[in-house]
Amino acid sequence: MSENIILTGFMGSGKDTIGRLLASRLNMGFISTDQMIEFAEQKPIKGIFEERGEVYFRKKEKWVIEKIKGLKNVVIATGGGMVIDMKSRKELQKMGTVVQLSTNIENLKKRIISNGERPLIRNVFDIDKLYREREGIYDFAEIKIDNSDKKPETVVNEIIEKLNLEKTQSYKEKAEIRIKTKLKTYPVIIGYNITERLPIFNNKVVIITNPLVGALYMNEIINNLRKGNNEIDYFIIPDGEEFKNFEVVKKIYEFLFQNNFQRKNFILSLGGGVITDIAGFVASTFKRGCRIIHIPTTLLCQVDAAIGGKTGINTDYGKNMVGTFYQPELVLCDLKKLLTLSDKEFFNGIAEVIKYSVIHSKRLFNILQRKKEQVKNRNLQILFEIMKMCVSIKGAIINQDETEEKGIREILNFGHTVGHIIETVTNYNIYSHGEAISMGMVEEMRLFGRKTKGIGEVKELLKAYDLPIYVPCDLKNKMKKLISHDKKMKGKYITIPVFEGIGKIKIKEVLCRKFF
Amino acid sequence: MSENIILTGFMGSGKDTIGRLLASRLNMGFISTDQMIEFAEQKPIKGIFEERGEVYFRKKEKWVIEKIKGLKNVVIATGGGMVIDMKSRKELQKMGTVVQLSTNIENLKKRIISNGERPLIRNVFDIDKLYREREGIYDFAEIKIDNSDKKPETVVNEIIEKLNLEKTQSYKEKAEIRIKTKLKTYPVIIGYNITERLPIFNNKVVIITNPLVGALYMNEIINNLRKGNNEIDYFIIPDGEEFKNFEVVKKIYEFLFQNNFQRKNFILSLGGGVITDIAGFVASTFKRGCRIIHIPTTLLCQVDAAIGGKTGINTDYGKNMVGTFYQPELVLCDLKKLLTLSDKEFFNGIAEVIKYSVIHSKRLFNILQRKKEQVKNRNLQILFEIMKMCVSIKGAIINQDETEEKGIREILNFGHTVGHIIETVTNYNIYSHGEAISMGMVEEMRLFGRKTKGIGEVKELLKAYDLPIYVPCDLKNKMKKLISHDKKMKGKYITIPVFEGIGKIKIKEVLCRKFF
Repeated sequence: MSENIILTGFMGSGKDTIGRLLASRLNMGFISTDQMIEFAEQKPIKGIFEERGEVYFRKKEKWVIEKIKGLKNVVIATGGGMVIDMKSRKELQKMGTVVQLSTNIENLKKRIISNGERPLIRNVFDIDKLYREREGIYDFAEIKIDNSDKKPETVVNEIIEKLNLEKTQSYKEKAEIRIKTKLKTYPVIIGYNITERLPIFNNKVVIITNPLVGALYMNEIINNLRKGNNEIDYFIIPDGEEFKNFEVVKKIYEFLFQNNFQRKNFILSLGGGVITDIAGFVASTFKRGCRIIHIPTTLLCQVDAAIGGKTGINTDYGKNMVGTFYQPELVLCDLKKLLTLSDKEFFNGIAEVIKYSVIHSKRLFNILQRKKEQVKNRNLQILFEIMKMCVSIKGAIINQDETEEKGIREILNFGHTVGHIIETVTNYNIYSHGEAISMGMVEEMRLFGRKTKGIGEVKELLKAYDLPIYVPCDLKNKMKKLISHDKKMKGKYITIPVFEGIGKIKIKEVLCRKFF
Repeated sequence: MSENIILTGFMGSGKDTIGRLLASRLNMGFISTDQMIEFAEQKPIKGIFEERGEVYFRKKEKWVIEKIKGLKNVVIATGGGMVIDMKSRKELQKMGTVVQLSTNIENLKKRIISNGERPLIRNVFDIDKLYREREGIYDFAEIKIDNSDKKPETVVNEIIEKLNLEKTQSYKEKAEIRIKTKLKTYPVIIGYNITERLPIFNNKVVIITNPLVGALYMNEIINNLRKGNNEIDYFIIPDGEEFKNFEVVKKIYEFLFQNNFQRKNFILSLGGGVITDIAGFVASTFKRGCRIIHIPTTLLCQVDAAIGGKTGINTDYGKNMVGTFYQPELVLCDLKKLLTLSDKEFFNGIAEVIKYSVIHSKRLFNILQRKKEQVKNRNLQILFEIMKMCVSIKGAIINQDETEEKGIREILNFGHTVGHIIETVTNYNIYSHGEAISMGMVEEMRLFGRKTKGIGEVKELLKAYDLPIYVPCDLKNKMKKLISHDKKMKGKYITIPVFEGIGKIKIKEVLCRKFF
């Protein structure tokens, strides 16, 4: 795992160009904070300055820092004014190594004037003024690299040399697992940097993503889609479970209508569970179903949400209370995306991986125990093996019970009955999904498998991956009411997966009032 | 086909009791105008009087007359005050034979006092007062039957005898056609009075219907469901395409949540295409899919919307632009329901029947030509044969191409590309669906099959069933814009069924600009 590299410097100092090149040379991710703000606001920077003013823009820059704080293995090109704020400078320093790109004023002027889109610059005198004002604010950088008259390649070499940087790990092997359902058989491809293989040609594509993921990966996806001579557009959803609702669904419908989107066209979901669920729901209902490809960007989504066709929308009555079963054309699980995840997000996914091991694979459980450090360090070889196992388990279950009617697919819900309720009563903003199901698994084992061998081991494993295992007392009362609205209720009983040992789960009907 | 019988008389004169008995004796439908208002307002009559006042209630009574005006073969129990309005009396006279039930004042008092729910009666003196006020208003009835101290059976016999009434036709044969899809195989049962066979036991059922259909058939359905020891509730949707929207869908979701509705429970759609489409959409998306049984009550819905799993919601961009493919557990096509349809509604369905004959069956086309009078008189034997043929044709097509992906199911859209656009530009309130596709078929034949043999015959047949065959000129301009949003568009081309002779349709890609 590499540390992040943060590029700062005055406007026109080449942060974007150098950043992209550096990221590509080192196999790292790249993000431009300005582009992320543009995605969030659905406007160019200049428009944001004109309509909302500089103060608002600076606030958005702090919001960006909050969002990207945990990222790993990313080259970050910051906006020229982002570091005016001292707190922001401190945050950036915590995130990784800060590199200042400096350029002499003549070069700056040439570059800035040839680009008419700088909001604070009306004429060449403004450049001088701003240059003087900002003097010294970039000095907090660890190293300073001059970029006045050099080729980008030279600058990138200098950075690599000065910081003694090495290429991030990559991985060559690929695997294709076919998911067989009654209506459709489709491949899940697992590998490193595989979005180059997007099989869409001469078609219309609408990418659905959020500002962070969009800023990280949209360029790459669009470049790859362009090779196929496609008409490409995108729709940005604000980040968070609270936007997985009907209002957003209706806005996407409207966007698709206005783009004259047809059933044979492609929706491409690019993001985590929220994006996959909502894009899947839209794809399944727009004109009675159009094509969709999932490119899940989190571990959680790669092993779970993107596989198996569940789509969903949250309502006041609980998570995913409205949804469909709708299979995609293809799922691309790109291991490269896992390297940029924050630790919190990564462990969020590990919770679901642990669930697979507990319900179905003692072997996977053992790997997670024995190779803990390698997993935590995101060793691609191990992640590749884990991914293959998880996707295969899920695929086999879905093949037997696509729409959760035979009581087979339900074993995937281990930990989720309690987990979803924890998420609902905390409004999705205290625990991640993984944390919630981690507590959910422990709680469900405690309630219905009290004396079973192996409970201790499961708890230990969860703890080893920094996952919580106890539900706070004050939540339990709030949770009681919601249990009766669960999708799996049948009268007074609820059908849930009951733990009977590691790798062994049985579906049983249990009395609802036994909860809490 | 029997004429309607309209029962009038003072409150407590036994219109409901006698009406139900009379309807059942004669195999006729039954409707209580008071109950229909209760369904529309979702409140008991007393509550409507208290909250909205008598003037509002009288307005609702006029609305009822407007809605039931075209019905056939129905015994109508009118509210005691409905005939105060002279216009309403005239309308009722036009609808059928008016029968006054009269009862001496002592009997009335006894009956009314024992029922505390009369809004205009606070004490026994109110009865005297109202009785005097209403004197004479029931005199417009054709016959007057005294119902003071007689058994209901005696009164019913008297009515039958005096009016020389005969039993409406019934029909013994039943047919079961199995619809085979990839996910599910389910039966469509065609027969007379078959809702007795509702196979739901010890379950929860929510009936989704509209005020008119609910008032006509809800009691019958509920009585039959009660035999199976079910928990029954219902949700009423106002009548009309304009209510097939997201706001109503969300209200149904809410209702289901509040009733703790589960995936294993049943939604029962009772009504025409609007009810079937919206209830189907809800069933396919609520908790990712619950069970649904369709009881289509119109000819159009029995031969089309209820078969094959298409669900849909209208948006500003067109009809059914959002929807799913979701198959029901069972479809009950009850021929009895066809006898109460207005002529307009019946011919609405005939348009779709003609479509089936044009796309697939010269034999059906010949029956529709040769037995025109019997079809128009709704001879049950003929309707039974027609129904079987239509359902079989649709079933065979769905079996080959459930989700309209192979270009086979698309032949069912003959006339619908233009038809849907006609409906959209006229806001669904000028032409019935059947009228729109009648014009649509002729227009599509004119555009893409100009010199084909048989066009004249098709036009003749449509005209013979009172269906329009020319699109008014002023509509054509408005329609142009919408064609590009059609679900079947592929770039500049649209895939539509092209007429090549009676019983012969081919799917072809045609240039979009050829329209209009």
